[in-house]
Amino acid sequence: MVTTPGDPGCVGFPEDSSKENAMKNVKIGILGIGTVGAGVYELLEKHKKVIGKKSGIDIEIKKIADKAAERRKLLNIPASIFTPDADDVISDPDIRIVVQLIGGTTVSRELMLKAISHKKNIVTANKALLAEHGVEIFKAVVKEEVEFGYEASVGGGIPIIKTIRESLVGNQIDKVIGIVNGTTNFILTKMMREDLSFDEALKIAQELGFAEADPYLDVSGWDACHKITILSSLAFNTPVDMSKVFVEGIEGIHMKDIQYADELGFVPKLLAIAERHDNGVLVRVHPSLVSKENPLAAVSWEDNAIMLYSDFLGKSMYYGKGAGAKPTASAVVGDITDIALKITSKTEYNKNRYSFYQDLQQKDFETSRTKFYFRFSALDRPGILSKIAGILGKNNISIASVIQKETEEEFEHVPLVILTHEALEADTRRAVKEIDGLSEVEGKSIKIRVIEG
Amino acid sequence: MVTTPGDPGCVGFPEDSSKENAMKNVKIGILGIGTVGAGVYELLEKHKKVIGKKSGIDIEIKKIADKAAERRKLLNIPASIFTPDADDVISDPDIRIVVQLIGGTTVSRELMLKAISHKKNIVTANKALLAEHGVEIFKAVVKEEVEFGYEASVGGGIPIIKTIRESLVGNQIDKVIGIVNGTTNFILTKMMREDLSFDEALKIAQELGFAEADPYLDVSGWDACHKITILSSLAFNTPVDMSKVFVEGIEGIHMKDIQYADELGFVPKLLAIAERHDNGVLVRVHPSLVSKENPLAAVSWEDNAIMLYSDFLGKSMYYGKGAGAKPTASAVVGDITDIALKITSKTEYNKNRYSFYQDLQQKDFETSRTKFYFRFSALDRPGILSKIAGILGKNNISIASVIQKETEEEFEHVPLVILTHEALEADTRRAVKEIDGLSEVEGKSIKIRVIEG
Repeated sequence: MVTTPGDPGCVGFPEDSSKENAMKNVKIGILGIGTVGAGVYELLEKHKKVIGKKSGIDIEIKKIADKAAERRKLLNIPASIFTPDADDVISDPDIRIVVQLIGGTTVSRELMLKAISHKKNIVTANKALLAEHGVEIFKAVVKEEVEFGYEASVGGGIPIIKTIRESLVGNQIDKVIGIVNGTTNFILTKMMREDLSFDEALKIAQELGFAEADPYLDVSGWDACHKITILSSLAFNTPVDMSKVFVEGIEGIHMKDIQYADELGFVPKLLAIAERHDNGVLVRVHPSLVSKENPLAAVSWEDNAIMLYSDFLGKSMYYGKGAGAKPTASAVVGDITDIALKITSKTEYNKNRYSFYQDLQQKDFETSRTKFYFRFSALDRPGILSKIAGILGKNNISIASVIQKETEEEFEHVPLVILTHEALEADTRRAVKEIDGLSEVEGKSIKIRVIEG
Repeated sequence: MVTTPGDPGCVGFPEDSSKENAMKNVKIGILGIGTVGAGVYELLEKHKKVIGKKSGIDIEIKKIADKAAERRKLLNIPASIFTPDADDVISDPDIRIVVQLIGGTTVSRELMLKAISHKKNIVTANKALLAEHGVEIFKAVVKEEVEFGYEASVGGGIPIIKTIRESLVGNQIDKVIGIVNGTTNFILTKMMREDLSFDEALKIAQELGFAEADPYLDVSGWDACHKITILSSLAFNTPVDMSKVFVEGIEGIHMKDIQYADELGFVPKLLAIAERHDNGVLVRVHPSLVSKENPLAAVSWEDNAIMLYSDFLGKSMYYGKGAGAKPTASAVVGDITDIALKITSKTEYNKNRYSFYQDLQQKDFETSRTKFYFRFSALDRPGILSKIAGILGKNNISIASVIQKETEEEFEHVPLVILTHEALEADTRRAVKEIDGLSEVEGKSIKIRVIEG
C-alpha cells in the first residue's frame, strides 16, 4: 500500500522518536523595546513553542535593555530580565544574538559595533544605520565572524533580503523597483481615490497614524532612499553610496496630475529604483506614473511591494505590510531563527555572505532614460504647441501623445499634457528650463517620470 | 571619517583576503534533462562562477542521466558526463546532490527513493510525486538524514517554500490562496479581456504553448490541487491527503458569467485555497470571483501568485512566473546552493525541517463558507424571484444583491444574477438542486464562489 499524505500513522514519524533532535537553547538579548521590540516580545511569547517544533530552536530572551523603565510594566516584562543598561546585554557571555532595535545612527551605531566586537551575532531593523554605515558594519561582521540579519530593515516583514540572497542566488538581478515607503503610498492612494490635495491627504495619514508628526523623512523620499540603498547593494553585490542616490519626494505632486494620469491609465507611486546601467548601477527615488496593468499599480494604501527583474526567474514581486510592530517582528524572528540554526549547527563561517564581490560604478541620474509626463500651463493661442514641441524635439525628446485639457473659461492658461517616448533625464532638464522661460507659459512646468515594466 | 558604502577600499575587504573562504566543490547529478533540466544546465553554465562568489560553493555537474541521447547533442552536453542510466548517477559516491527532474509518479518515485536510500540529498520539481507520496518521501528523507529541496514544485521560481518555512517561521499561517496554474490563469484572462469562450481561449493557449495538447491536468484543477496539497502541508505543518481536496476545474466557466462578474467588479480566477477551519484544515481548488481591489486580481495571463495570511506578517503575496525552464531552474539552483551550503558546513541534521508536528483533521468541503455568485435562467414572470429567494432563504442563504439582466426579446428565459452573503457550501447544493427543479427555471444553474480577503 502506498503511504498517502493522509496516513495519520506518519505524523511526527513517531517510530523515529528516539532519534528526535534535542531542542537547542539559544539566548538572545534585545536592545530597545519600542514598537518593534514589543512586537518581537509578543511574538516570542506567543509562538516560542511552535518555533521550537518547526525549527528545533528554543529562543530564550535573556535580557532586554531599555532606558524607559515604564515600557517594562506596560509590556508585562519580568523585572529579572529588564535592564536600563545596553552593556548588560552586550557583555553577557550567555547571549549569542543581540537584537538591535534602537533607531538613529549614532548610539545605535556605537552599540552595534560594540556588540559585534563582543562576537555577538546581530539582528537589526535599523535601515538608516545600514544605509549610511553598511560597509563599516559588514567589515566588522566579517572580521569578527558573526552572523548578521537585517530582513526587517526593508519592507517590514516581506522576505526580500532572503529572497535576493538565497532564493535568487542563481540569477543576475537587473532591476529592483520598490514601493518601500508606506506613508507616501498611503498619501498617494488617498489623493487618487478621494481627489485630495497632498496637504489634505497628509493630514489624514497623520490622524490615522500612517504618517509621523514630522513626516519629512517619509514624504521627502529619504526613507525609501535608505531602503533602496540596502536592497541595491545586496541585489548587485556592490557597495552603494547613499549620497549619490537621486531623491525626489512627493510633496510636489498635484491632485490635478493624479487625475490626468488616472485618465491616461496610470497610477502615481513613489518608486525606489535600482538598475544595471552600462556596467554600472543607477539608483534613484522619485514619484512615478505606473501603468494600471503593472502589478505595482495594485499595491495600495500603506502596503509595500518590491519587484525584481532577474535573468532566470524573470519578473517577480513580493508584497505585504512594510512597517508596523507585528510584520517587522515577523522578519526579526525569522532572522533570529536562521542565525540560531547556523550557530548551533557547527556551521563553518561563510564570509561571502557579507562581502561584495564587485564595485560597480554608481551612475549619475542625468544619464537615466525613462518616458515622461509633462504638464505645461500655456496660453491658449495658435503656435504655442509647435513652440513647445520644437524645444522638446531640439532636446531629443520625442512626443508620444498630447492632450490639451479643457479648463474653466476665466483662465487664460490651459493645461497641456504631453507624454513622451524614452528620453534622457539631462535632456528633459534643459528642455523644461527653456519652456519655462517662454512668455506664453505660466509657472513651473510639471515633470513626472513614467515607469514601465 | 565615517566609512561610507561608496568607499572603494572596502570592496571585497581585501585586507582580509588571507582569510577568504576556500571554494567548496559540490558534485551534483541530474536525472532527466527535459525542459527544466535544460534550464538548470543553462543556468549553471552561465552563472556558476557568480554563484561561487556569492555563496562560496562551486557546483559541479558530474553526471546527467537521460534515456534520450539526442538531448545531449541538442544541449551541447559533453559526452563524458552523459549517461542513459539513472543508476550511474545514484550510485556515484562523489555525487552529493541528485537533482530529480523526471516527471510522473512511478519511475520517478522509485528513483527518488533509491537515491535517498543511497544517502543522496535531493532537489526536485515533481509536484505530482510530492502531492501523492509526500509522507512516504519525507519519512525516507528523515530516516536517511538527507536534505530535500522542492521549491521548484510550486509556483515555478517563486520562493514560496522557503518563505513559509524560514521567513515566516514566527507566524501562524491561517490561510493560503494561490493562483498556481498558469494555463488556467491564461485562459481566464483571455476569456475576460477578449470576450472569448472557454474553448476559443483554450485553443489559443495551446497554440501559444501555454496549454498542453492534453490540457486535462491543468484545466480540471488537478495540477493546482497537487500544488496546494504541498503548500498547505508545509504551511499548516500537517499531512494533507490530496484525495480529500475538493477540486473543480474551469471547463464550466461561461463567457457570460465573466462579463457579468466584470460589471460587478470581479475577476475570475482558479484559486487553490487552504485554510484553518475549526481546528482542522480545509483545502480546495475551484473557479472563484475575486474583487478587482484584491492584489490577486492583478495576477494576469500565465503568471502565478500565492497570498499568505499569517498572524504577525499579515497578508503577503508572492508573484511571478509559475512555470517554464528558466524560472523553474532558478528555484532548483536556489535549492542546490542551500543544500550545498548545509552539507559542506558540518551542519547537524535537522529532522524538524521535514517532519510534521501535528495532524490536523481535513475538513469536508461541504462545511466551507463563502459568498456566492448564482446565475439562474428563469422565465420572466412575476413571482419567480420570490420563489427562488424563498428557496435560498429556507436554506440559510441570505441575498446581498439581485441583478436581472436584459436579454434579447426572442428568449423566454432571462438571466437572474444573485450575489449572496456568506453561506454554507452544503446549503447551496441543496438550494441549487431545488431551484433547478423548478419548471420556471431552465437548464443547470451557475454557481461560482466569491473569495474575499
